[in-house]
Amino acid sequence: MIDSTANRQIKNLIQLQSRAKARREQGLFVAEGVRMYRETPPDLLEKTYVSESFYEKEQNRGLLKGDVEIVSDRVFAAISDTKTPQGILMLVRQRQAFVEDMLLAEEPLFLIIEDIQDPGNLGTIFRTAEAAGVDGIFLSEGTADIYNPKTVRSTMGAIYRMPFCYLPKLSLVPAMLRKRGVCTYAAHLGGEMEYTRPDYRKGCAFMIGNEGSGLSDELAGQADAYIKISMKGQTESLNAAVAAAILMFEAKRQRELP
Amino acid sequence: MIDSTANRQIKNLIQLQSRAKARREQGLFVAEGVRMYRETPPDLLEKTYVSESFYEKEQNRGLLKGDVEIVSDRVFAAISDTKTPQGILMLVRQRQAFVEDMLLAEEPLFLIIEDIQDPGNLGTIFRTAEAAGVDGIFLSEGTADIYNPKTVRSTMGAIYRMPFCYLPKLSLVPAMLRKRGVCTYAAHLGGEMEYTRPDYRKGCAFMIGNEGSGLSDELAGQADAYIKISMKGQTESLNAAVAAAILMFEAKRQRELP
Repeated sequence: MIDSTANRQIKNLIQLQSRAKARREQGLFVAEGVRMYRETPPDLLEKTYVSESFYEKEQNRGLLKGDVEIVSDRVFAAISDTKTPQGILMLVRQRQAFVEDMLLAEEPLFLIIEDIQDPGNLGTIFRTAEAAGVDGIFLSEGTADIYNPKTVRSTMGAIYRMPFCYLPKLSLVPAMLRKRGVCTYAAHLGGEMEYTRPDYRKGCAFMIGNEGSGLSDELAGQADAYIKISMKGQTESLNAAVAAAILMFEAKRQRELP
Repeated sequence: MIDSTANRQIKNLIQLQSRAKARREQGLFVAEGVRMYRETPPDLLEKTYVSESFYEKEQNRGLLKGDVEIVSDRVFAAISDTKTPQGILMLVRQRQAFVEDMLLAEEPLFLIIEDIQDPGNLGTIFRTAEAAGVDGIFLSEGTADIYNPKTVRSTMGAIYRMPFCYLPKLSLVPAMLRKRGVCTYAAHLGGEMEYTRPDYRKGCAFMIGNEGSGLSDELAGQADAYIKISMKGQTESLNAAVAAAILMFEAKRQRELP
């Protein structure tokens, strides 16, 4: 049992929880909780850590599918990102999709995410995207790190199932999509067409921009059409995850029309 | 200028920022930032506090509409709930709507919120509700405090414009609404009717339950119909603010159909 936060593995887990750079350099991240343990693909699972009191319960041991490292409750509290840790966390290998594979989907529904900053928003977008039947998500390099512990948590497991890819030149994506007949729609305050008007039953992609500044002109300029979600009252904008959800579920609604 | 956190006013502001009980007892709350200052109704504004460095800038002084109390930057940092304070915050009087007034709306769109716990979710629901044209929000007493600083912030000013009311017996609301011809829909995992099927152009209300446990049987039992937002993939549920947004904007979409 590991009983010291000076342990090399523990020190590294703490680093991975707090520093995007460490995660990027090692190609690893930390996922927490029983649910995430169940959903982590075996080929990505590097190592499982459980707290002493988690391991003491027989029903918990029954959940475990392989070797685990036991750590003291005090050490576990130090490596956990949550206030009330469940007592199980995993060291997991990062895996992004290949753009070429993502493009193989037929009549796909994609998201193109530029510089979303809030980790919770990003995770919620992944969770909602899975529910809406999205085929993949393209992300700018300036977007928050999907492997941030708060983001991982708010994906509710979608991080393992939703194909995604961070790209240095996100503005190249719309042209790639256009070649395959996929139409890109920029959610933009300057849009004149209500988001309910286009036909989303064919391949389509929604561009969602930064919470404060929206889409860059460079990326928005590549869109096939601008759309807006018109608003009542004095609201100036919607939360980015909410706006993305409204668009994705409008596409889903249209695609499921009889 | 106030330069001590031992000052009686400052100590009270810190209490109001951190304790729901103090806010409830005093009927006051704290709102922060230039935008909120602009949107605070004058009849609710008790007092405005600005930081020394905020007040030093002439353009900032130009924004001020009345007397302010100046506090040192160090003191301001202590009373602010944000990491990078803008330098202006207000002591504001709480004001709930009267249920009777809320019921006067014609063909209204309402939300009935039961025990939402996450302050950010609650604030986002208010913000989205204003944009969707919601006429009022009924909240259970077990719902998070709308006057929590994080919640106030995430309403983006909707807290001042959206009529709302906390009720000890939320389960009485559906019957009151029914008398006025307003149909209540419970968003429920047990729902069999897809949320896109009902006609929301007449008066209607959506019930949204707790993030983890959903609606109580007591409240859900009062609904006129159960609806579901069907999901793809392995998603088990949507974020509560996202689910509420999808329902509200479906109602808005239908109401704006030509």
